[in-house]
Amino acid sequence: MEKTLKELAEYLGGRVAGDETARVRGLASLDDAGEGEITFLANPKYAAKVATTRATAVILPPGADSHGRNVIEVKNPYLAFAKLLTLFHVRPLQAKGVMAGAHIGDDVVIGNEVTVYPGAYVGNGVRLGNRVTLYPGVVLYEGASVGDDVTLHANVTVRERCRVGSRVIVHSGTVIGSDGFGYAPDGKGWYKIPQIGIVVIEDDVEIGANVAIDRAALEVTLIRRGTKIDNLVQIAHNCVIGENCMIVSQVGISGSTKLGEHVTLAGQVGVAGHLEIGENTMVGAKSGVPGNLPANGMFSGIPAIPHREWLRSSAVISQLPEMRKTLNALQKRIAEVEEKLAAE
Amino acid sequence: MEKTLKELAEYLGGRVAGDETARVRGLASLDDAGEGEITFLANPKYAAKVATTRATAVILPPGADSHGRNVIEVKNPYLAFAKLLTLFHVRPLQAKGVMAGAHIGDDVVIGNEVTVYPGAYVGNGVRLGNRVTLYPGVVLYEGASVGDDVTLHANVTVRERCRVGSRVIVHSGTVIGSDGFGYAPDGKGWYKIPQIGIVVIEDDVEIGANVAIDRAALEVTLIRRGTKIDNLVQIAHNCVIGENCMIVSQVGISGSTKLGEHVTLAGQVGVAGHLEIGENTMVGAKSGVPGNLPANGMFSGIPAIPHREWLRSSAVISQLPEMRKTLNALQKRIAEVEEKLAAE
Amino acid sequence: MEKTLKELAEYLGGRVAGDETARVRGLASLDDAGEGEITFLANPKYAAKVATTRATAVILPPGADSHGRNVIEVKNPYLAFAKLLTLFHVRPLQAKGVMAGAHIGDDVVIGNEVTVYPGAYVGNGVRLGNRVTLYPGVVLYEGASVGDDVTLHANVTVRERCRVGSRVIVHSGTVIGSDGFGYAPDGKGWYKIPQIGIVVIEDDVEIGANVAIDRAALEVTLIRRGTKIDNLVQIAHNCVIGENCMIVSQVGISGSTKLGEHVTLAGQVGVAGHLEIGENTMVGAKSGVPGNLPANGMFSGIPAIPHREWLRSSAVISQLPEMRKTLNALQKRIAEVEEKLAAE
Repeated sequence: MEKTLKELAEYLGGRVAGDETARVRGLASLDDAGEGEITFLANPKYAAKVATTRATAVILPPGADSHGRNVIEVKNPYLAFAKLLTLFHVRPLQAKGVMAGAHIGDDVVIGNEVTVYPGAYVGNGVRLGNRVTLYPGVVLYEGASVGDDVTLHANVTVRERCRVGSRVIVHSGTVIGSDGFGYAPDGKGWYKIPQIGIVVIEDDVEIGANVAIDRAALEVTLIRRGTKIDNLVQIAHNCVIGENCMIVSQVGISGSTKLGEHVTLAGQVGVAGHLEIGENTMVGAKSGVPGNLPANGMFSGIPAIPHREWLRSSAVISQLPEMRKTLNALQKRIAEVEEKLAAE
Repeated sequence: MEKTLKELAEYLGGRVAGDETARVRGLASLDDAGEGEITFLANPKYAAKVATTRATAVILPPGADSHGRNVIEVKNPYLAFAKLLTLFHVRPLQAKGVMAGAHIGDDVVIGNEVTVYPGAYVGNGVRLGNRVTLYPGVVLYEGASVGDDVTLHANVTVRERCRVGSRVIVHSGTVIGSDGFGYAPDGKGWYKIPQIGIVVIEDDVEIGANVAIDRAALEVTLIRRGTKIDNLVQIAHNCVIGENCMIVSQVGISGSTKLGEHVTLAGQVGVAGHLEIGENTMVGAKSGVPGNLPANGMFSGIPAIPHREWLRSSAVISQLPEMRKTLNALQKRIAEVEEKLAAE
Repeated sequence: MEKTLKELAEYLGGRVAGDETARVRGLASLDDAGEGEITFLANPKYAAKVATTRATAVILPPGADSHGRNVIEVKNPYLAFAKLLTLFHVRPLQAKGVMAGAHIGDDVVIGNEVTVYPGAYVGNGVRLGNRVTLYPGVVLYEGASVGDDVTLHANVTVRERCRVGSRVIVHSGTVIGSDGFGYAPDGKGWYKIPQIGIVVIEDDVEIGANVAIDRAALEVTLIRRGTKIDNLVQIAHNCVIGENCMIVSQVGISGSTKLGEHVTLAGQVGVAGHLEIGENTMVGAKSGVPGNLPANGMFSGIPAIPHREWLRSSAVISQLPEMRKTLNALQKRIAEVEEKLAAE
């Protein structure tokens, strides 16, 4: 594919400065780009490289020095780069239909332009939207549903009656709708509480590899639209994850916890059950959240405290042995002083 | 399904107060229940709602005020609720046999009323008990065995010669019997120590999604009866997990560690290798256990210390910067005092 | 199989003391070994058991007391034990070819003596070396390649164009080449940055169960030769893991981080993105690494500090409440002293 700068500027909603008929057929970094490629400046630190890059054109933010290069000016060059990656590198879907070796159950509704690979299993009563791709080893239990433009990668499992929205991507090995972890002690051991609820994944969600999202005990475990979930994350039964959250790898969220919109949980965070985290709040990597957190905050530590406090406290931790010694020495000195005064 | 209160009371081992011919066909919470439904009071905090619920009947503990409602009195209403959920919502198994598209190896022994879905693989010499369900993508390697009334969900792997007991449920993506992580340095790199042992899962165990339980180096990794394991848990080679333990999500247990019965490890706990945790002991979320823990205790922290101590210590952590300052100020003040006294 | 001590000594590069025609047909521990078995002494603590073991022969390090037993002397008895385990217990591969029920795409190149089980899926353009084993549920996307003597266990996924070297073992449920976690905010939500790079796994790597290794955004996520990765590990896009590293279970490594050779990350360690850890460095279990770490060090804690400091600091943590009290008491005492001096 080859595009003129004029075409690309239109695609990006930006404007060209320089030769708008110049042609581009790929992207690369400021350092690596050559003739016929476009690059971008996202970090002002590298502004000087705009002068020396061999790229045919540079995507710049408003006001940046063009050094006489062909430029597409956009508000957010990093986003523009992502969009051009999509334009140049993401191949349009070529539907292959239901391939031999796929299993389709009874009473299944299948949209247009789907691809169901050999070894995918579609249970009875499943509904698939348009342009759905099910890779080998995908298993949809009875009554599951999937919206339009969805990709379920190899070996994804979606359990009975769970609902996946449109434009959702689920990576390999992920399990949607496994039973929540619920038992009642019965005097001899643990009596299983049937988990008869479901999972609902709204539109535009992406879920990484080997994630586990448990079905609700009675109602719904809900992942709201636009949320992105990284690999190996655990989301327990009855959680509600707000819109556009970022749940980084190996996070664990306990049962019935609710996240507001645009919450970020960094890697390996653990969140206790039955609590709420307000919108836009960020929790630092490896933190443990034992109680509610307000909106618009930044928290870290085990237990999580405001991030600035945690930075200050954690810096002191390595001084503890020396503080211990100082404290002991002070006790001795004050005792001596007291003795002296008493003797006077 | 519809049941009279008399029938339900018999099923639960409780007794009816009120109209024992009243009929019930479902369950709901105190708030949501309506005509024809039964509800329950587990938390005394909500006792007043018994007066206002529109449920046909309420499950109450002995001595609770019935507010004139139809009541089934039982010792443990929460357990009774779980049992009624099972009664009303868990459909009896309908065996489908070995379905077309399932692979059955040589010398396989298969019990009665099994269901083996398309895309399940049963290796040579495998033994399956009665009423076993193998969902699509389940892989049983050569010589594995599975008891009665077992459900292996989609994409579960059971490696060669591993043994799964009766009434076991394993959720999707879980791997039983992968090689333990064992290597000997050989001067150039790591020489693999063959892992020739197995995993034994006893009766009434439930294992969550995307769990990994490694086979022993020489002998047996053992999960004793009644233990419940949540999603994304790691159990290393040669571990012995006692009866009726609760292993919450994302816990990791290192090699050769032994847990007594009824141990609870909360989410994201890590346990070092070659150690023992005594029966009934609980370890708080995100803790790290570097050494043996006695029975009947409660521990938290990294490293884990008695839970009460940890609560007190972790509360002080956010005060550390201020303690640091106070300590510095005290040093100065005592120096001044000492100087004064010396000058006298 | 039965071997003379002479044969075993040759295999191990050691020398026999005693009857070199004595025959051995298995291995066991010092305690358990009997007639016809060989045992080994790795830990000097158990040297006395050499006198009492009923084994036919003992593997000893140079200089150890043989107590008159038949001995094979080697520099590293533990490594010798691992090698004999391999000799006696690892069965030679018996290739079964491409079995019925396996799916082979177009333009696939397949080496000699492969085994492709029913339910394995080999996409278009895939290349498989000699003596490759693909268990059921393995999915190789288009253009993936696999070297010689590779075993991919059940339900492993290798995404498009990813490359796996020779003598690699990947355990069940592991995903190689899932999309990296990359998004740009677009004012409404998160715009997906296409992940068009790949994963390269070099020779002699072993990867545990349910691991996730993400493909690079643009270039390569690289696992260098000889590295061993345990279960449930997360390796993010663009990471470079050096040769012969040991990555223990549930570790998470964020994007673009580079590990030197022979780095050890213990269980549940988290490493931030865009940083470097020098060769031979070890990081203790559950630690959090927020910045670069030098070579040849040992670090622990959240944030990670030198291991010895961490040991000292963490020992003080349980004393914090008492330190807090002491500090308060000291403040009072010094105030009293100051008052007295002022009054004089």
